[in-house]
Amino acid sequence: MSPAHASPAPVVSPLVPTRGVWQPLGLESVRITGGYWERWQSVNASTMIGHCLQWMERLGWLPNFDKAAAGTLPEGRTGWQFSDSEIYKVLEAMAWEIGRTGDEALEEQLQAITTRVATAQEPDGYIDTMFGRPGQEPRYSDLTWGHELYCMGHLIQAGVARARTVGLDDDLVDVAIRAADHVCREFGPGGREGTCGHPEVETALVELSRVTGDSRYRDQARVFVDRRGHGDHDRPGFEPPYFLDDVPVRDATVLRGHAVRALYFLAGVIDTAVDDVDDELLAAAVTQMTTTLARRTYITGGMGSRHEGEAFGDDWELPSDRAYCETCAGIASVMASQRLLLATGDPRYADAIERSLYNVVATSPSADGRRFFYANPLRQTVLSRQPDNDDVSQRAGTGTRMPWFEVSCCPSNLTRMFASLGAYIATTDDEGVQIHQYADAMIEAQLDAHGEDPSTPAAEARLRVATDYPDAGRITVTVIDGPQHPWTLTLRVPGWADRATLTTPDGEQSVSSGYVEVTRAFTPGETVVLDLDVRARWTWPDPRIDAVRGCVAVERGPLVMALESVDLGVDTGPVCVDVSQPPTDNGRTVTVQVATMANSAVVWPYGSTDHREADAARTAPLIPYHDWSSRGPSTMRVWLPVQ
Amino acid sequence: MSPAHASPAPVVSPLVPTRGVWQPLGLESVRITGGYWERWQSVNASTMIGHCLQWMERLGWLPNFDKAAAGTLPEGRTGWQFSDSEIYKVLEAMAWEIGRTGDEALEEQLQAITTRVATAQEPDGYIDTMFGRPGQEPRYSDLTWGHELYCMGHLIQAGVARARTVGLDDDLVDVAIRAADHVCREFGPGGREGTCGHPEVETALVELSRVTGDSRYRDQARVFVDRRGHGDHDRPGFEPPYFLDDVPVRDATVLRGHAVRALYFLAGVIDTAVDDVDDELLAAAVTQMTTTLARRTYITGGMGSRHEGEAFGDDWELPSDRAYCETCAGIASVMASQRLLLATGDPRYADAIERSLYNVVATSPSADGRRFFYANPLRQTVLSRQPDNDDVSQRAGTGTRMPWFEVSCCPSNLTRMFASLGAYIATTDDEGVQIHQYADAMIEAQLDAHGEDPSTPAAEARLRVATDYPDAGRITVTVIDGPQHPWTLTLRVPGWADRATLTTPDGEQSVSSGYVEVTRAFTPGETVVLDLDVRARWTWPDPRIDAVRGCVAVERGPLVMALESVDLGVDTGPVCVDVSQPPTDNGRTVTVQVATMANSAVVWPYGSTDHREADAARTAPLIPYHDWSSRGPSTMRVWLPVQ
Repeated sequence: MSPAHASPAPVVSPLVPTRGVWQPLGLESVRITGGYWERWQSVNASTMIGHCLQWMERLGWLPNFDKAAAGTLPEGRTGWQFSDSEIYKVLEAMAWEIGRTGDEALEEQLQAITTRVATAQEPDGYIDTMFGRPGQEPRYSDLTWGHELYCMGHLIQAGVARARTVGLDDDLVDVAIRAADHVCREFGPGGREGTCGHPEVETALVELSRVTGDSRYRDQARVFVDRRGHGDHDRPGFEPPYFLDDVPVRDATVLRGHAVRALYFLAGVIDTAVDDVDDELLAAAVTQMTTTLARRTYITGGMGSRHEGEAFGDDWELPSDRAYCETCAGIASVMASQRLLLATGDPRYADAIERSLYNVVATSPSADGRRFFYANPLRQTVLSRQPDNDDVSQRAGTGTRMPWFEVSCCPSNLTRMFASLGAYIATTDDEGVQIHQYADAMIEAQLDAHGEDPSTPAAEARLRVATDYPDAGRITVTVIDGPQHPWTLTLRVPGWADRATLTTPDGEQSVSSGYVEVTRAFTPGETVVLDLDVRARWTWPDPRIDAVRGCVAVERGPLVMALESVDLGVDTGPVCVDVSQPPTDNGRTVTVQVATMANSAVVWPYGSTDHREADAARTAPLIPYHDWSSRGPSTMRVWLPVQ
Repeated sequence: MSPAHASPAPVVSPLVPTRGVWQPLGLESVRITGGYWERWQSVNASTMIGHCLQWMERLGWLPNFDKAAAGTLPEGRTGWQFSDSEIYKVLEAMAWEIGRTGDEALEEQLQAITTRVATAQEPDGYIDTMFGRPGQEPRYSDLTWGHELYCMGHLIQAGVARARTVGLDDDLVDVAIRAADHVCREFGPGGREGTCGHPEVETALVELSRVTGDSRYRDQARVFVDRRGHGDHDRPGFEPPYFLDDVPVRDATVLRGHAVRALYFLAGVIDTAVDDVDDELLAAAVTQMTTTLARRTYITGGMGSRHEGEAFGDDWELPSDRAYCETCAGIASVMASQRLLLATGDPRYADAIERSLYNVVATSPSADGRRFFYANPLRQTVLSRQPDNDDVSQRAGTGTRMPWFEVSCCPSNLTRMFASLGAYIATTDDEGVQIHQYADAMIEAQLDAHGEDPSTPAAEARLRVATDYPDAGRITVTVIDGPQHPWTLTLRVPGWADRATLTTPDGEQSVSSGYVEVTRAFTPGETVVLDLDVRARWTWPDPRIDAVRGCVAVERGPLVMALESVDLGVDTGPVCVDVSQPPTDNGRTVTVQVATMANSAVVWPYGSTDHREADAARTAPLIPYHDWSSRGPSTMRVWLPVQ
């Protein structure tokens, strides 16, 4: 890892570490121009952000700020104690979106909401519509459940987004800095001793220190990181592991407890380790993520298998039907993995990001951006109710996408993820450009700006990435412009890609999973072509995963595939699959041979004979898992019982 | 089913329906004299009841009544809103125990506690230490969560136990009747409209009507049964199905929601259907239990697969590791099944009772009666903490038995079940005696008391049952005395018993599962011998149960067997079993051949090869599931992956 940079470059990204193997390229450098992710960015801009704002107005979560300003709270306050954070997450999304597109109407909306938020801020910087007024509980009277620092953390992240897109001279940045200053005064040296029950402020504070250059925020984050793990948070049914408060982070070996809490905390831990040059702490984070990916992660990348406590299960506890796999945990895992990727350069984190983006993040929203999954199970056993447009789900596990939730953290989280997707595509270092995620894109990078030889002038590389990924496996990178001296273009070969070839102006070669480098004095117009074999393949589970024993999944490129009852004509329950031949993949459709197992149990489902007879095989199409439930209520299987 | 009886015989049993295929024989008629269940009755009498009383004093749950009497509540009240019910359940246990043994010290204790309870009762019969006083919430202000009727239901059941053992002239009976009268006034015609969020009072009220002959209580139970199912109980995260309040009971086809609520309610529904001669309602109950046994019940008989909401899962959702299988749900399923058995004469209900008694109820307590499982999973993946004697568990899922729980419904429930076990052994009808559960026992029954021919005198049959069941499969019934005319001895051949023979004075015959009848003018000393093949056998799951696909279990007689890490020497995680030969069973030890599967995944647990290679086979002993975790923390499997 390179030494800490004195002042990071002005990168338009949620994450700009002061040191790392690679430096991020943000929205100023990477523009997604087409394909799968461009479609989600468009839907987010046209619909999803507005959908969230509309619901937050309608349910009173935004008007809570007006009531705070008018001094009428607590009367009429609506929403959970963390509802303020939903507004902040959408503000963050709007800031990235404005940075990406310069949308003027959205800028007006952002400023209007910022004004409403700002008027609710107390003179000392504290802001929360739930606490501290006459008739409300006092500030910080319930650190475990109050979510005050969590909410201010999201506010700070929105402020960071604004600072990175329009600069520090901005009302929302001011609100965020005032809140952060308050947090540092209140919880810093000589102040309160506690931590927030829900981590989030840690990663926000480090990022604010990066964008402002003020180390106080980073120091406060480290205080929060170090304070955690001593059992301060402990409630009936919610013991310290739920809050990541059972073991100091340096001693922990795996993620546990509430998955979103765990992953947000991990993000803050990595940020702290990176900026404080604390490699012991970074090693602890790497260990925890390594074990979690090896033993507590679904094939989709989903994390958190338990509905109870929205929590990680024990090792190998990965049931398909009751997979919680909260959308927010998917987003948080992308945040944490991106931090580890930049810090270590290990391609498995880019693999993990790809997996979670395609199979958790992309699974949540409906194609029109107006309905969402909160939980993302890998097996649906019953036909769920199709909601109407006014449905607010009380529960996370719905089986069909819902317009809104009583706890609606996931839709607002998606808006900020989609608006900032460009920040996950590529990075740079002294040698060149690295492309981690594949989409039609334009990439610009200043090369050698940090080179050791001061006589080498900084030069810009401009690349065009053209691909039908993930439908097809060809990625063509064209060098539009670049330095005249040799530099290195690095491409990720995903871990799933068995047979990959790379074609450069020098010829074709087989390449293995990991990063492949092409070092060359590129002339404009030269191309590098990576061909990945995305054809459908069988994927087998580790035998220690009890829940999917005797089953196989189908993956196609980075996509996990699923069998849906809509295509099968009957329920997916008693189906089994013939694995004697590979799945059929004609480039547009993936099919497998399935049959139906005999169901003889009508009285008692356990007996002396093994009922595995199946009827005649027939062909059944599979769909990408992230598209399931798009055609009305259905039952669904990712893991297919082997005949 | 026979017509309703005008006045039921004075049977000392928790359940004395006014009609049914069979009439129960209670503790007055059946004495368990040795063997497996006698041991539990002894431990219950010597230790378990006292253990519960000690904890309820220590934690203040019993002193709550003293504070109520002293008028100092709500100050110092401890425990959940349903803690009163725990005292009532132990009072019920004490009443049965006194009825069974005449224990004078226990009688003194019961009277002392009755006095403390009685002084807390309001003049109008209402009794609850949680509600209605200045500084407390008003009575019935929260029917959904308040548990007031639930608590009074348990009080009424304690009163019924007392009435059946010492008669109606008793202080505890008085308290119970005053409470029941209050409930009828308050919730009867012209009164409040609601139902209790937790069913229980329904079955209690019907039983009180049976013991008092007062139909008002039965009528009130029917009101509660009919009122349910209209969505009155609906809270965030706890929707109507949790409360069995989603569908009127006549329209429901399966049990759902909170398992204990569902099964207590089913008990009340059956009681109402039986006493009101409402065969449509009875048919609904039969349908619900049939579907539940076929699709939502573990091989142990355990019910309720979800930790979240302590609830039934969907059809075929039966994970081993996260099996909740609350001990109370096991007890409640025995209560419901016994009601259906008496009403219908269908042997599968006796099978279900046997299964739940041996594999859920018997699993909960430690051998010394001082520690308990609340949840009864079929797979333990991690080594749990061994508690000390002062441990009060906040959670239900513990992995080792715990001295007490914050919600300690299960230990108190066990005390009343064990004290009344004699009531589940045998029944009678006009033709003779039926034996349903096998234990060393003495059985007395008046035959022909209700016969159609008034010239036939009533005569007593006295039977001795001698058996080492479930260790051995021979059950010898000796007729000590009996009528001189022919009568019928009926024995249950369990559903699992493939090869059973019956030896009577007339010779030996093969018999099939179900009930086998021997009609004969028995002479004193004649024996009927039932030989069941209890040797260990493989049992396969229905292929629709995703969680145990590719696995097999071992059962021995009525016992579900388990593989525990203590015996294996290593973790049970990656183990697999050779099914080419039956399990070895030498009458004392059951062994299987196991191997360990290759564990290759260190980074990502899904890949292109099927890791099913196993190392060399070795012999591993199995233990009865109900004994697991008796030798310290362990990992455990009921379902063994097939090699």
